[in-house]
Amino acid sequence: MKPVLGIDFGGTSVKFGVVVGTEIVSSPAPIPTQNFEGSEPLIEEICQVIETVKAEYPELAAIGAGVPGFVNFEKGIISNLTNVNGWKNIPLKEILTQKTGLPVTVDNDANAMAYAEWKLGAGQGYENLVCLTLGTGVGGGIIANNQMLRGANFGAGELGQTSIDFRGRLGTYGNSGALEEYIGNREIIQEAIRFYKHAGESKTAAELTPADLSKLAAYDDETALQVWDWVAEKLACTLMNCCYLLNPSAFIIGGGISKAGDLIFNPLREKLEKSLTGPHLDNLQILPAKFGNEAGIIGCSAIALEEAEKS
Amino acid sequence: MKPVLGIDFGGTSVKFGVVVGTEIVSSPAPIPTQNFEGSEPLIEEICQVIETVKAEYPELAAIGAGVPGFVNFEKGIISNLTNVNGWKNIPLKEILTQKTGLPVTVDNDANAMAYAEWKLGAGQGYENLVCLTLGTGVGGGIIANNQMLRGANFGAGELGQTSIDFRGRLGTYGNSGALEEYIGNREIIQEAIRFYKHAGESKTAAELTPADLSKLAAYDDETALQVWDWVAEKLACTLMNCCYLLNPSAFIIGGGISKAGDLIFNPLREKLEKSLTGPHLDNLQILPAKFGNEAGIIGCSAIALEEAEKS
Repeated sequence: MKPVLGIDFGGTSVKFGVVVGTEIVSSPAPIPTQNFEGSEPLIEEICQVIETVKAEYPELAAIGAGVPGFVNFEKGIISNLTNVNGWKNIPLKEILTQKTGLPVTVDNDANAMAYAEWKLGAGQGYENLVCLTLGTGVGGGIIANNQMLRGANFGAGELGQTSIDFRGRLGTYGNSGALEEYIGNREIIQEAIRFYKHAGESKTAAELTPADLSKLAAYDDETALQVWDWVAEKLACTLMNCCYLLNPSAFIIGGGISKAGDLIFNPLREKLEKSLTGPHLDNLQILPAKFGNEAGIIGCSAIALEEAEKS
Repeated sequence: MKPVLGIDFGGTSVKFGVVVGTEIVSSPAPIPTQNFEGSEPLIEEICQVIETVKAEYPELAAIGAGVPGFVNFEKGIISNLTNVNGWKNIPLKEILTQKTGLPVTVDNDANAMAYAEWKLGAGQGYENLVCLTLGTGVGGGIIANNQMLRGANFGAGELGQTSIDFRGRLGTYGNSGALEEYIGNREIIQEAIRFYKHAGESKTAAELTPADLSKLAAYDDETALQVWDWVAEKLACTLMNCCYLLNPSAFIIGGGISKAGDLIFNPLREKLEKSLTGPHLDNLQILPAKFGNEAGIIGCSAIALEEAEKS
């Protein structure tokens, strides 16, 4: 199997990994995005990393980039990059193809994660699958009829933007009740502060990260358990909606919050069992993701390899 | 093009149509379902209709049934039939194939409607499409990647069961905030009664059918307009969720409520424009269905013909 370079655009840095199958055989140093004004100098720097990788892996078969934000997958154009300025309608695929001579794909990072789990991870063998990543934001990717579901303009799978309350908290795009406004990392912390305050305990944001809440709940801290139940209630609503719309066989859940494990998975299963029936509940699996932070790099590499082999 | 017999199972009657393309060339008399105890005698009666049709159309190519409720499309088994007793796990495809010797398909009626609109109606040419039917219940069918999206257990497209409020009205399956509990026919009438009461007018359910509400709104009746806006708000939430999950190019809306036309379409468009952006809003079409009550018969005939030609 030939090596592929995966490039993972994050909010603070661009990470690299030379991937063979599911193994990252080399990890060139990340580039901090804050150091760059606009896209051009950053792309220059990325191209230098690519040149170094090509020198080390002359059989490099393709380059796959995963980016947070909207992407035209077909044309490889980044519409916008979440949390990074100066990235509007950047034809990254064209630029990198011209500079490197290699086949390039550019995809949304949550799609890349979903692809990694579907083809190589916890979702192998499922023809209808929803992947979620729970972190600062809530992202997702959908497999239906054994294909990636990208939608008309490559915007499908935005689970974090779907509503759980038509009169609810306002999302980034004017979307009331956006799930992300409830169970994004920061929002969970804020909710936890409220729960503890209500319980008569004053705790700071720094004491109530999802990792802290997991530890507290592991010691049967009643308030922490309530917070996780509160999170599960919101997440269950969106997963239920996915079930009625898409009737998947499995949900694969990754990202920081998913590390809470049974604290989130158990109430989630319980709530879904109460709100689904028959074909929507039969054999439904809720599984933790196989890959962690490397899901994006592995996924976009796998997509790049598949696309390169098609053409 | 060969004739196909479409059979549309309703809550009160089973309707028939001999279909050639989009034309219903013959409509045998419907069978009222209330007259029958259990499935067997009703199926017997249906088979008699089929025999008559076969005598008149010896070139009959296939039989397609559309049913309200959950169906295993592959096996042609009806899990349950909404509003009709004695229909649990009925292998209708097998029974009708054995009795008639013709290829038979059995599908959910909302899927049949979606198929009709996609292949022959308002949705022609769209590769990513969501169809809705707004009546006593709220049904739906999804086309993604230019294929029917049926899901793992053929339960996809149940838009009426998706939630618009995680703490909302309880749906049939324990699903809080189910859209159908807000904008089903009966629920709209109840809401209208409340709106008029609040405005100081006492009106009965019989005076506030969706047709009445359309007429009132057409005369700029402020309260009726408020009711339609209230309906549009709920529907917009579910359509928005479809956009973020599926990123379709178009919604096709049929069923009784859709006859309200611009009264529902205009506020719907306005609300979607406020809660969607970029790839989710670009070129998004919201279109009335081409077919009316005959959508089910035309759709399940078209599905039956396609399946028959495959095998």
